Amino acid sequence: MDLIARLRAGLPGEAVLTDPDVTGSYANDMASFCEAGTPAVVVLPRTVEQVQHVMRTASELRVPVVPQGARTGLSGAANASDGCIVLSLVKMDRIIEINPVDRIAVVEPGVVNAVLSRAVNEHGLYYPPDPSSWEECSIGGNIGTASGGLCCVKYGVTAEYVLGLDVVLADGRLLTTGRRTAKGVAGYDLTRLFVGSEGSLGIVVRAVLALKPEPPGQLALAAEFPSTAAACEAVCEIMARGHAPSLLELMDRTSIRAVNDMARMGLPDSTEALLLAAFDTPEPAADLAAVAELCTAAGATEVVPAETAAESDLLLQARRLTLTALERVKSATMIDDVCVPRSRLAEMLDGTAAIAEKYGLTIGVCAHAGDGNTHPTVCFDAADPDESRRARESFDDIMALGLQLGGTITGEHGVGVLKKEWLARELGPVGLELQRGIKDVFDPLGILNPGKLF
Amino acid sequence: MDLIARLRAGLPGEAVLTDPDVTGSYANDMASFCEAGTPAVVVLPRTVEQVQHVMRTASELRVPVVPQGARTGLSGAANASDGCIVLSLVKMDRIIEINPVDRIAVVEPGVVNAVLSRAVNEHGLYYPPDPSSWEECSIGGNIGTASGGLCCVKYGVTAEYVLGLDVVLADGRLLTTGRRTAKGVAGYDLTRLFVGSEGSLGIVVRAVLALKPEPPGQLALAAEFPSTAAACEAVCEIMARGHAPSLLELMDRTSIRAVNDMARMGLPDSTEALLLAAFDTPEPAADLAAVAELCTAAGATEVVPAETAAESDLLLQARRLTLTALERVKSATMIDDVCVPRSRLAEMLDGTAAIAEKYGLTIGVCAHAGDGNTHPTVCFDAADPDESRRARESFDDIMALGLQLGGTITGEHGVGVLKKEWLARELGPVGLELQRGIKDVFDPLGILNPGKLF
Repeated sequence: MDLIARLRAGLPGEAVLTDPDVTGSYANDMASFCEAGTPAVVVLPRTVEQVQHVMRTASELRVPVVPQGARTGLSGAANASDGCIVLSLVKMDRIIEINPVDRIAVVEPGVVNAVLSRAVNEHGLYYPPDPSSWEECSIGGNIGTASGGLCCVKYGVTAEYVLGLDVVLADGRLLTTGRRTAKGVAGYDLTRLFVGSEGSLGIVVRAVLALKPEPPGQLALAAEFPSTAAACEAVCEIMARGHAPSLLELMDRTSIRAVNDMARMGLPDSTEALLLAAFDTPEPAADLAAVAELCTAAGATEVVPAETAAESDLLLQARRLTLTALERVKSATMIDDVCVPRSRLAEMLDGTAAIAEKYGLTIGVCAHAGDGNTHPTVCFDAADPDESRRARESFDDIMALGLQLGGTITGEHGVGVLKKEWLARELGPVGLELQRGIKDVFDPLGILNPGKLF
Repeated sequence: MDLIARLRAGLPGEAVLTDPDVTGSYANDMASFCEAGTPAVVVLPRTVEQVQHVMRTASELRVPVVPQGARTGLSGAANASDGCIVLSLVKMDRIIEINPVDRIAVVEPGVVNAVLSRAVNEHGLYYPPDPSSWEECSIGGNIGTASGGLCCVKYGVTAEYVLGLDVVLADGRLLTTGRRTAKGVAGYDLTRLFVGSEGSLGIVVRAVLALKPEPPGQLALAAEFPSTAAACEAVCEIMARGHAPSLLELMDRTSIRAVNDMARMGLPDSTEALLLAAFDTPEPAADLAAVAELCTAAGATEVVPAETAAESDLLLQARRLTLTALERVKSATMIDDVCVPRSRLAEMLDGTAAIAEKYGLTIGVCAHAGDGNTHPTVCFDAADPDESRRARESFDDIMALGLQLGGTITGEHGVGVLKKEWLARELGPVGLELQRGIKDVFDPLGILNPGKLF
């Protein structure tokens, strides 16, 4: 019996897609420069048992399986390989439980981040992780890539909100990890091992997530600086003085101009860096005043604190539009995700500007400055082979710079296909050997998302 | 060449202890009911290279190695096995770096928790994890057992503060994991795998720890309840309403009476449960007032909010004295560490009282109530074989109850020798098989702390 027939034996008809025009549309996530193959079949299970059937079938026939969420990832981790089963979890999208006393939610992997966020809000609760794609991306994908977002400077990344998991293993067995309690130290932390593993260790089919009480609405300020160094000095001072902003973002000159060109925001052209800070504390105005003072001391030429939520939204709009604005500069963009210690942020930004000049490219940077997490975005003409080559080379230079500054090649986007050579450089041979050893324990046949990470 | 001579070849004379009277004193941590063997030798390295020499020697000669910190653990994880090398890390006690901008500290494993806490305080920073033994216990031991403390209800456990590690592997190679950045998702999270692994995967020789800004001093209240159910209702309400106490502790009747007997605290004998809550927020008095109202609504007979730090200390003293007071009830105590969802806390406490009655034992419970983490302490006469047997059996009943309520057998003390049979029950066969597989990847010869965890 062939693969498709075997799959159909344990799945409803509509859950098995084989039309190449349809399956082809599942080949890619949103990463640039990442190869993708042609899937043999796309399956859309709705139950744990159906996922188990898929994995048992794949194991028996030695067929690679590529798990997918909403395919909003930026590293190619969800890209199909030739002849694979694409295992899409988007139909498993139930919120099973929201518990305000235990401050947890239990969800299936296909739940969209924004859907969960709004559902817990109704209970006075807050699920912090907020990737830019939060209106489309799924919790399963967030877990697979250990996603971050704007909130991380105060609330941390996805990993810190995953308490326990149900996982279908490569051979179809079901594993339950972790807990639904606030604490727990029974054995090795397998839950955390799955977070960020990009579907290479098992298929997450249920997650117990920690929630926070919903904070007050945040109030923001914008500060204009005559140099990135001055803006970074402000960032360091804000963090060294013990402030806890709920958002601390930086836009460089290139990003500011791109946004100005697109949306006529009226930011002065002399501004070399724009810093956006927000607080969701009980007295945000007082916190903003203290931060305004630090910005001025660091050399800010103008500081604009919002007095209402509407004004805050207006200030933050420039940041929200950055990627769209940069996408209009050239026919293609390539977004990087390098995180350095925040004390080295100024060097990272200056070094990135130097790389742009070296290659004659436009590279706009927006950064989760409070985390030292920069997103240099290379703008290039994809039809121009030489410019495309320079774009690719500049991207490598940026990662090398990040490592040299004591940073990591990925703060929140993951490794996927895009950075797998760089992962080996960051981990070193001993680390890589151990990571491969762990992969072999969970996936001895090597059928789970092969060609990703390593 | 024999073991001792081989060890001496790479270690200074004073770092190798062989006198049985001396080495015998390294046989145990502070757990009850845990077997301990006789070490062949105790080594006290001061450098990473010396640790590597010890592990290379142990690997070549196939000698088991038991890593030790301050031996304040409560599960026997640091107990010697016969003929082992005890590898004590207490001499590696340097604080290498404290960085207020990056909010990190870099330390060796032998640094005492309280020493680090005070050192970072001088920079306006805060290292939250605060096990009861914080004046003696070491950071390496805290990492090995993933320790908690009173702070966890607001600040989480040790695991959440470990960003990166240097680890000497079983074969003597050096592995660096993790990062010193705020975020990072490059590969599987090996850092988190080592936290709580009780020395069974490698020897932590350096840690990068995350720090928080130092919060304002906390202000506490005490509330007396006529039943544990009423006190637990207050706990649930406090958490469901979104409060963020920096401490939320519960003492049961047995604990209250033991403390009264010892310290004449004057708590009324009719009190069935005492709840202690504290806030380190900018306006703690307002938070305490709100919590006082919830306590009263839940049935508290008396609520005493502190108005000064000194008054707070006085209120919290009862909690601090609990274990000492319970240790005076009988010749021996056995302290458990079961964590349940906080919504099940009342059932856990009532069930524990029923178990005490069933076995005719005195069992005092204090709990990190906000986390659902209870510490039932069985008081018994160690010279009475029948009472000792009943104590042991009641201990098992308590863990069974915890699992039945959706909890875990250990919230913060670890597995060690004490709970290894129970770990298998909590993990189930699939989880256990994978955990053993991971152990084999890191320690194929099985020389790292054998007989612990599994």
